[in-house]
Amino acid sequence: MVLYIIGLGLHDEKDISVKGLEIVKRCEFIYLESYTSALSCPIEKLEELYEKKIIIADRNLIETKIESEILLKAKEKNIALLIIGDPFAATTHTDIRLRAKELNIEVKIIHNASVITAVGIIGLELYKYGKITSIPFNNENIITPITVFNKNKELGLHTLFLLDLEPLKRKFMTVSEASSYLIKKGIDENIISIGCGGLGSFEPQIKVRSLKEMSLEPITRYPQCLIIPGKLHFMEEEALSFYK
Amino acid sequence: MVLYIIGLGLHDEKDISVKGLEIVKRCEFIYLESYTSALSCPIEKLEELYEKKIIIADRNLIETKIESEILLKAKEKNIALLIIGDPFAATTHTDIRLRAKELNIEVKIIHNASVITAVGIIGLELYKYGKITSIPFNNENIITPITVFNKNKELGLHTLFLLDLEPLKRKFMTVSEASSYLIKKGIDENIISIGCGGLGSFEPQIKVRSLKEMSLEPITRYPQCLIIPGKLHFMEEEALSFYK
Repeated sequence: MVLYIIGLGLHDEKDISVKGLEIVKRCEFIYLESYTSALSCPIEKLEELYEKKIIIADRNLIETKIESEILLKAKEKNIALLIIGDPFAATTHTDIRLRAKELNIEVKIIHNASVITAVGIIGLELYKYGKITSIPFNNENIITPITVFNKNKELGLHTLFLLDLEPLKRKFMTVSEASSYLIKKGIDENIISIGCGGLGSFEPQIKVRSLKEMSLEPITRYPQCLIIPGKLHFMEEEALSFYK
Repeated sequence: MVLYIIGLGLHDEKDISVKGLEIVKRCEFIYLESYTSALSCPIEKLEELYEKKIIIADRNLIETKIESEILLKAKEKNIALLIIGDPFAATTHTDIRLRAKELNIEVKIIHNASVITAVGIIGLELYKYGKITSIPFNNENIITPITVFNKNKELGLHTLFLLDLEPLKRKFMTVSEASSYLIKKGIDENIISIGCGGLGSFEPQIKVRSLKEMSLEPITRYPQCLIIPGKLHFMEEEALSFYK
């Protein structure tokens, strides 16, 4: 039997691949990892499409009960573990795979879209991003995102800031909050930045603003992320001009 | 009417999303961009699933005839432009979108998996990659990949090398060729590297070897890419140990 780790993509129930859907329909238990990310559609929509019940896998289940609740079951039954976005964007999911290997459980992966490449829509070349960084809640004493940004900037590279979220509490950091944090930590408020909301949907919100303006002007769709561009190629300039 | 730019994912006809498939079935003309990347299944498999004829869009069509052949048609009919992987991994596709905007053509994007995140399967954190680089054919005088690698290494970051391909000629650079190139350009042949073939399929080939060994030991699945890790976290070490 197999543990299928299936990426759901970014927006709604229909972003799962045709292959992913066929497999989910054949699985006996379906878990949705729901504490590192959030879909923008109700879980009932997924259940309707799959014609199956979904079990919510929260942090406690994933981090402390995964072996008994999920992995060992996959010795006897086909199990699907659904991950929002692409399966291995978060370290947790690599850990699950390692533990499955140790238990000799067969794991198959079904990839999907991730925000890391979906930001391509704004028109900055994916080749020209430096290290990705994320801004956590409670960031008064956190400076990693600043260090990463400064290094990328020095190299002329774009920086993608992923923003913290606690999906089960419906708590999502906004681009405005992230911008305020960066300004507070000393980044020039006049620097140009790109705020994104709802990437992966048909109506993503994309704004090109100074960091100061970004801190004041809300983006209303979720999830959100923030980019500060490095050195721009003329085609990148042209792409950004659509969002000014 | 709408120009839908639809990512196909990495491996076969069933990697398209459920949404993507529904839309393709409603479109009047379907183009497949087929010179920057290659699927690992025959085009007939796609046509069978879509119940539609596919028009191959080669470099000439995309770069010189896109306006008359594709964009202007989308003023009156729904058109699908299929892109292997995720739509905006290549600059060409951003250019198409900009030209569509100038012509006031509505464009909707359907994202999918890309090799940039699918490499997550090897267990190195996606957060810890530096700039991506690619190794072209005819690389005797090319040193960009070396410069990028050296900078990433200095920062302790992983480097993903994408390998050149000419899908219409069925010509794909191999991990072995890429490793030989890196050694010839002065990279230590004893350094550990990760060679991948067939990422996105259920049987990806993943090998952890010295660059020297990698240059001698073929990987047989396609497409291929090569990674040289930076500073490793213990969980990353553990993940790599499965492929030694």
